Amino acid sequence: MRILFVGDVVGNIGVAMIHEYLPQLKRDLKPQVTIVNGENSTPVGRGISQSIYKQILKDGADVVTMGNHTWDNAELYDFIGGANRLVRPANFPGDTPGQGWTKVKVNQQVLAVVNLQGRVFMNPMDDPFAKMKALLPELDTDFVFVDFHAETTSEKRAFAMRYDGQLSAVVGTHTHVQTSDAQVLQGGTAFMTEAGMTGPADSVLGMKSDSVIERFENQRPTRYTVQEVGPGLLSGAVIDLNDKTGHATSIKPILISPQHPYQS
Amino acid sequence: MRILFVGDVVGNIGVAMIHEYLPQLKRDLKPQVTIVNGENSTPVGRGISQSIYKQILKDGADVVTMGNHTWDNAELYDFIGGANRLVRPANFPGDTPGQGWTKVKVNQQVLAVVNLQGRVFMNPMDDPFAKMKALLPELDTDFVFVDFHAETTSEKRAFAMRYDGQLSAVVGTHTHVQTSDAQVLQGGTAFMTEAGMTGPADSVLGMKSDSVIERFENQRPTRYTVQEVGPGLLSGAVIDLNDKTGHATSIKPILISPQHPYQS
Amino acid sequence: MRILFVGDVVGNIGVAMIHEYLPQLKRDLKPQVTIVNGENSTPVGRGISQSIYKQILKDGADVVTMGNHTWDNAELYDFIGGANRLVRPANFPGDTPGQGWTKVKVNQQVLAVVNLQGRVFMNPMDDPFAKMKALLPELDTDFVFVDFHAETTSEKRAFAMRYDGQLSAVVGTHTHVQTSDAQVLQGGTAFMTEAGMTGPADSVLGMKSDSVIERFENQRPTRYTVQEVGPGLLSGAVIDLNDKTGHATSIKPILISPQHPYQS
Amino acid sequence: MRILFVGDVVGNIGVAMIHEYLPQLKRDLKPQVTIVNGENSTPVGRGISQSIYKQILKDGADVVTMGNHTWDNAELYDFIGGANRLVRPANFPGDTPGQGWTKVKVNQQVLAVVNLQGRVFMNPMDDPFAKMKALLPELDTDFVFVDFHAETTSEKRAFAMRYDGQLSAVVGTHTHVQTSDAQVLQGGTAFMTEAGMTGPADSVLGMKSDSVIERFENQRPTRYTVQEVGPGLLSGAVIDLNDKTGHATSIKPILISPQHPYQS
Ligand SMILES: [Fe+2]
Ligand SMILES: [Fe+2]
Ligand SMILES: [Fe+2]
Ligand SMILES: [Fe+2]
Ligand SMILES: [Fe+2]
Ligand SMILES: [Fe+2]
Ligand SMILES: [Fe+2]
Ligand SMILES: [Fe+2]
Repeated sequence: MRILFVGDVVGNIGVAMIHEYLPQLKRDLKPQVTIVNGENSTPVGRGISQSIYKQILKDGADVVTMGNHTWDNAELYDFIGGANRLVRPANFPGDTPGQGWTKVKVNQQVLAVVNLQGRVFMNPMDDPFAKMKALLPELDTDFVFVDFHAETTSEKRAFAMRYDGQLSAVVGTHTHVQTSDAQVLQGGTAFMTEAGMTGPADSVLGMKSDSVIERFENQRPTRYTVQEVGPGLLSGAVIDLNDKTGHATSIKPILISPQHPYQS
Repeated sequence: MRILFVGDVVGNIGVAMIHEYLPQLKRDLKPQVTIVNGENSTPVGRGISQSIYKQILKDGADVVTMGNHTWDNAELYDFIGGANRLVRPANFPGDTPGQGWTKVKVNQQVLAVVNLQGRVFMNPMDDPFAKMKALLPELDTDFVFVDFHAETTSEKRAFAMRYDGQLSAVVGTHTHVQTSDAQVLQGGTAFMTEAGMTGPADSVLGMKSDSVIERFENQRPTRYTVQEVGPGLLSGAVIDLNDKTGHATSIKPILISPQHPYQS
Repeated sequence: MRILFVGDVVGNIGVAMIHEYLPQLKRDLKPQVTIVNGENSTPVGRGISQSIYKQILKDGADVVTMGNHTWDNAELYDFIGGANRLVRPANFPGDTPGQGWTKVKVNQQVLAVVNLQGRVFMNPMDDPFAKMKALLPELDTDFVFVDFHAETTSEKRAFAMRYDGQLSAVVGTHTHVQTSDAQVLQGGTAFMTEAGMTGPADSVLGMKSDSVIERFENQRPTRYTVQEVGPGLLSGAVIDLNDKTGHATSIKPILISPQHPYQS
Repeated sequence: MRILFVGDVVGNIGVAMIHEYLPQLKRDLKPQVTIVNGENSTPVGRGISQSIYKQILKDGADVVTMGNHTWDNAELYDFIGGANRLVRPANFPGDTPGQGWTKVKVNQQVLAVVNLQGRVFMNPMDDPFAKMKALLPELDTDFVFVDFHAETTSEKRAFAMRYDGQLSAVVGTHTHVQTSDAQVLQGGTAFMTEAGMTGPADSVLGMKSDSVIERFENQRPTRYTVQEVGPGLLSGAVIDLNDKTGHATSIKPILISPQHPYQS
């Protein structure tokens, strides 16, 4: 089984990059399952709208994952009930609307796609380690992909090593800068600390650099605004699983950027 | 001018990786200046000792940089006064022992090597943005390398974009996982969010995974211990500067790991 | 039912204050139940030992509560199994040794004593709000006292207002400085943001001021040391409950300090 | 010299409490200088407006201090240049509009009123300890009042003990719940960890409890809204200084609340 994952889509340029490159990537890589993190996909870079959710699916995603920005666009409350291809972190508190995981049928197998959020330097959600442990029997499949949305490299890697051999893949999101450590861990779990973002290249994590620099320098409340001009980048990974065991055989980063133009 | 930078050396395996590969890297890459971050180089992964400092210089470093672990080994207080090749973050408070930058003569040019520490999710040091601004006239050279030791991708990138064109290179350290975004910014500053660490590969940021996982799962005070067995990795970057302007012409990541064995 | 609560006992002076004043306070106030927070009661101000635990009980406590420093003295692992009068935060993760609440029989009633820990600016424990909700039916009594160990005034007060009418009393601990807001909320829950500490008066939260000031000024790792000389203070509250409903009828702060000497 | 200080004014009820009680308090206590923290005085509890600033002065304040919410109401940018009775934290970065301290003439003496902001669990401003040290010679008077706006009890008390004998008074603000530790320190500095807020009593720090509880329980972005009904409270302190030395002779808390109605 081949999985294509694309990291945090930011703003209009991010959505445009999906529209432009996801079909090509799918044609070239032929993944059975395509997963896109959409937590920053509105034009202001916060949350997701129904029309963008539908657009990302139409452009080729099977599942859309989220993160700490899940609820930033309140429109989600209206459509999450029916958004059966969208998963928000499974360790959000008990009564949170929406689902923390979903399943995708691929030939004879079933891939569970799980979203979890870390807690270090983030809001205090339920324990993602304990949540994963509780979910495993419930998922009832050897094919499990986790988008682990977290700030620190240590929490992401510790999580992956804790569940090495029990999950097919753990791919980190949230920090928006791809890491170069894609690897299959000893137990057979594909891991990458951070997939990286999909959005405006000439920016700070998708935001106009001026507004971000200003806030660092004057420590006053400046609203970050999404960068809306210039080239885009698309970041992610492609993962191959053994169709019998669900263990990973390979994980390779994907990076389309001004420095690395797309090559079929 | 070519600069070789090697990220956070962790524990005995990190020091052994330096000993084994730094001479080879220098032979192959022929940098004029070699800089190594040594903030985790003691056997327990915290701080630096005089003997290890000397060993790293002997193995080929011209300058050793530090970070938030600078003072974790109290022995440093005894030798920092005479350690003229060691720099600790320049934005530590006023009376802090040691120096925040040093200069290395390279043919006709002088390279200033600066160490700074970020503040997001870290201890509240003096403002690194303001400190850089104040330092620039003092450094009085067009060749400036900054090891920016910080937790978040946003603070690192915002800093680099703020000083794009005024610094030769900004290389991030501290999160220990190399990013794949090495690039020369529009103004001519080489930038990479994170150089990555140099230490035990089968670990969480250099520490035994068991102890780190345990703490994430039980939230009780477990002392992390350095991983002392298994393969090592070495992470860093090589940067080329225009000898006239001090602007960067190229930055390339260096990564020696089980997945990427060293090739001359 | 009258409850006497005494806030975080710090170091030898704190233990001595308990020894000197707890018997007098009990003689004068005649509480049916006496509860003491002992998370800082070792000579170094971190955790608790078996001998101090026994001493605090002998001096008059019926229950000893804890907090974020629960595990700082590893000796606790050895005796917590048999320490049936000690409660550590109930929202520590699943497999944590010890108990999160206990019951004290008072004539015809049973008082449940619960310890919970907040999450804002603290380690990410299980959700204390959700934990309280889950505990309520399990406790199966109208008489419930909660030591809510938390950093921020907002989390403490929000918790008390959330469970106003369902708990007899919520008394905050951890910040070590008593607040002047003791009050019975509209629903009948006695509340006080912070009981305050019991320990050395000439100190910063029980620690020698020199070491604390030094760390604020130089941001280097200085070990805080407990203040071992000078006068002590004892902080707490006395709470009266309606013996039929379990609702509070009164809460009054207790403060013995150099500025407020004890008066019977 | 007698100083009256009133803690964080929150929303319309806070402003109304000032209007109703400040004149009475001044008539009864006869302070020479009256200082009011106005960082939450707009109807939404964030920042200050010009009309409210003028109203607070008209109701009897000589100086208005601020805190971390200084810039939440952007209108301040328009009038801070001419607001010579308003001080915002002096340790905001270099180019911040406005002033960090001001002087009030009282008979033969001059009282400097300084505003500083802490850094623990707050945005990383310039070092308040270092800033105070630098300011002391500049202030050039033995009569110095500091509103230290900070989150933790430790930073507030450490600051007061560091400058004990060099400042007339240090009064903490920001956590909105008054502490019961008002005292003159050994060197002659009046100190109180937290003055407390002036605003709606039936609230969480001035905000409607429902919105705050909701956010603690569901961890989703709920905008806090100011409580606009019910009784108010007014918190502060009155401090007496020796007219020769500037040292404090007394500090007493002021608390007007449903539990403690005002008595002349
Ligand atoms: Fe994101
Ligand atoms: Fe995120
Ligand atoms: Fe490091
Ligand atoms: Fe570090
Ligand atoms: Fe404590
Ligand atoms: Fe505590
Ligand atoms: Fe406030
Ligand atoms: Fe504040």
